Amino acid sequence: MPYFDNNATTPLWKVAEKAYLDASRNHWQNTSSPYRSAARARTLFDRDREWLAALLGCPADSVIFNSGATEGNNAIFNYLAAKHSGDARVVVSTIEHPSVLEPARAAFPGRVDYLPSLSSGVADLSELSKFLENPNVALVSLMAANNETGVLQPWRECLKVCRRKGVPFHTDASQWLGKMPLDGLGDCDYVTTCAHKFGGPKAVGFILIGREEVGFKSQLGGAHEKGHRAGTENLPGVRSMVAALKHVYENLEETLSDQRARRDAFEKTLCREIPGTRIIGGQSERLWNTVHVAMPKYANTRWVALLDKRGFTVSTGSACATGKEGPSHVLAAMGIESEEAGRILRVSGHWDSSSAAWNGLGAAMAEALEELNRSKSSAEGPMVISI
Amino acid sequence: MPYFDNNATTPLWKVAEKAYLDASRNHWQNTSSPYRSAARARTLFDRDREWLAALLGCPADSVIFNSGATEGNNAIFNYLAAKHSGDARVVVSTIEHPSVLEPARAAFPGRVDYLPSLSSGVADLSELSKFLENPNVALVSLMAANNETGVLQPWRECLKVCRRKGVPFHTDASQWLGKMPLDGLGDCDYVTTCAHKFGGPKAVGFILIGREEVGFKSQLGGAHEKGHRAGTENLPGVRSMVAALKHVYENLEETLSDQRARRDAFEKTLCREIPGTRIIGGQSERLWNTVHVAMPKYANTRWVALLDKRGFTVSTGSACATGKEGPSHVLAAMGIESEEAGRILRVSGHWDSSSAAWNGLGAAMAEALEELNRSKSSAEGPMVISI
Repeated sequence: MPYFDNNATTPLWKVAEKAYLDASRNHWQNTSSPYRSAARARTLFDRDREWLAALLGCPADSVIFNSGATEGNNAIFNYLAAKHSGDARVVVSTIEHPSVLEPARAAFPGRVDYLPSLSSGVADLSELSKFLENPNVALVSLMAANNETGVLQPWRECLKVCRRKGVPFHTDASQWLGKMPLDGLGDCDYVTTCAHKFGGPKAVGFILIGREEVGFKSQLGGAHEKGHRAGTENLPGVRSMVAALKHVYENLEETLSDQRARRDAFEKTLCREIPGTRIIGGQSERLWNTVHVAMPKYANTRWVALLDKRGFTVSTGSACATGKEGPSHVLAAMGIESEEAGRILRVSGHWDSSSAAWNGLGAAMAEALEELNRSKSSAEGPMVISI
Repeated sequence: MPYFDNNATTPLWKVAEKAYLDASRNHWQNTSSPYRSAARARTLFDRDREWLAALLGCPADSVIFNSGATEGNNAIFNYLAAKHSGDARVVVSTIEHPSVLEPARAAFPGRVDYLPSLSSGVADLSELSKFLENPNVALVSLMAANNETGVLQPWRECLKVCRRKGVPFHTDASQWLGKMPLDGLGDCDYVTTCAHKFGGPKAVGFILIGREEVGFKSQLGGAHEKGHRAGTENLPGVRSMVAALKHVYENLEETLSDQRARRDAFEKTLCREIPGTRIIGGQSERLWNTVHVAMPKYANTRWVALLDKRGFTVSTGSACATGKEGPSHVLAAMGIESEEAGRILRVSGHWDSSSAAWNGLGAAMAEALEELNRSKSSAEGPMVISI
């Protein structure tokens, strides 16, 4: 599969499609309705909730289904802002997804403290204890793995510090869930997730609320999800998401070793064949599928177009930032200048990416470089940055 | 089709399933990504937006895709509360769906004026002008058709009054869209909708923002939907919703005449065969599919169970209220006592409900009555209300 933008979104697994269709054809009833066919749908729904809770190591009541991580991230900050006084603050890292950063700033205006990023792409926890001396911290939020660089974040360490201080901890696990072992995730106070990042359907996800958060509300309205999240339950979506998760976790060990080896071989060849190439976050622990790479020259948009022509789909960065101006806030936080940022490609493999696909991509990049070198207009055209 | 709870949710049309699958298999890419396959997905997405705008008679920019009416209703009240000063008020009807009432009260605490309901189930606009004398009214919200009674509401008249006063008007069209002609809907300042109420998929819908609402935000985060609604676009869901809408509007005229005749015949027979039966809102203009009926005796939960046993699925009321205690707020607003409310059934037909299905339901109700009359425990058991 020559598609290498799986951090943006993924194709639906066949097993997930089958689960969607089965539920949509046979159990489409409103799970809140008072008759037997609806009760059967409700049973499947509850079974999925229990399976997820077991996978994550948390009580079933902690799992609230929703429309994905953006909804989840918004809901947490809005909920905490309403719960706490106007003095309350939140601590977030500078490399969070916009769906964390923007709700944090909107719900806690002027009351956000930032964990900076090291140049390695890892969030720097050295000031965390200082921030937590303030008794009004309502939440610390640190993503599990970064969507652009793939760099794994010290969320477990952050959780420990928060626990000692009695401050709730949230992790946006959108890029982690489905790709990495789950130990400890169910211990976080809040976890947000997104099915379409691991071969589940779009517009489905869940949030974990790890403590007794009786008053937590994502959307107000009908009394679904024990009052935590109004809106008719999307059983086909949930069943499909669970089928996708089952599939990826059944094969995780194999994926981890095979894909990491293929990705590492790709990086090694790339750096050898195209001198001056720099792997962003290359010294850090990263997701097995992600290569964030600064090419030695030429705007990333030109690379993307030439690789696309050759059937290889890579990206200039986060799809969620397309349309926003200026370089990525993640790269800026890592101290990367906008000139280099404009040369960066994000390559994100699939669970099933073959060695041939990874090798093919490497060869296509070498060809693209030749074409760019040959191209008259390639020399010093205006830099187009669209990360 | 013996399923008569289509106001709770509907089965997915085959054409809508096909559209979902086609998009999910061939155009699952992130519509915000910078390569050709994503651009093709984006083109389909924009085409659907334009088709919807043409159907509703509004500019394409007014259509914001989201996860359904609950999200839409929440977003509007939250947006307006943030936009206006702490003096701003909203006017809503007492018979709105909880996903309007609850966000209105949470976002405008103590600053909600209510349009009462007449005993006919129609919202009473007589005090609207008085409410609008207050210069701080940020919104008037009146649903298009009630989900419990099916009674059509004077939303067009309400819109006219609001226009004269320069106050924005919102209608929750969840039960209207897909069932009724759309004239005038695109003129409203805000319209919320929900695909699974007309044979589209769950967790999909759209909101119309009819004026230049540059600052409108549903969810914060990625720059999707021109900044109005963050979250990866759900192209399969949107394509499926549009396919469902196309299907129902292609056949609307036939549906309106056939289904209304079948429903009316059912009501006539029911009232004749089971004396003491009362159609709630029977004197009002109603959706062609809805029968809200007070049975002369026995708790509605017992009726539902006995009809279910005979293969006919009807409901005690709104699925969104299952789990909430006490009688429906809609019935209370209509002045219906909780004793009678506990005998009320909601029957809501499908676009394809056959005469045989409607007749079968009538016969099953007569049989159920006999069984209830025969049953020893039927006489004076404790009333169970679970509307």
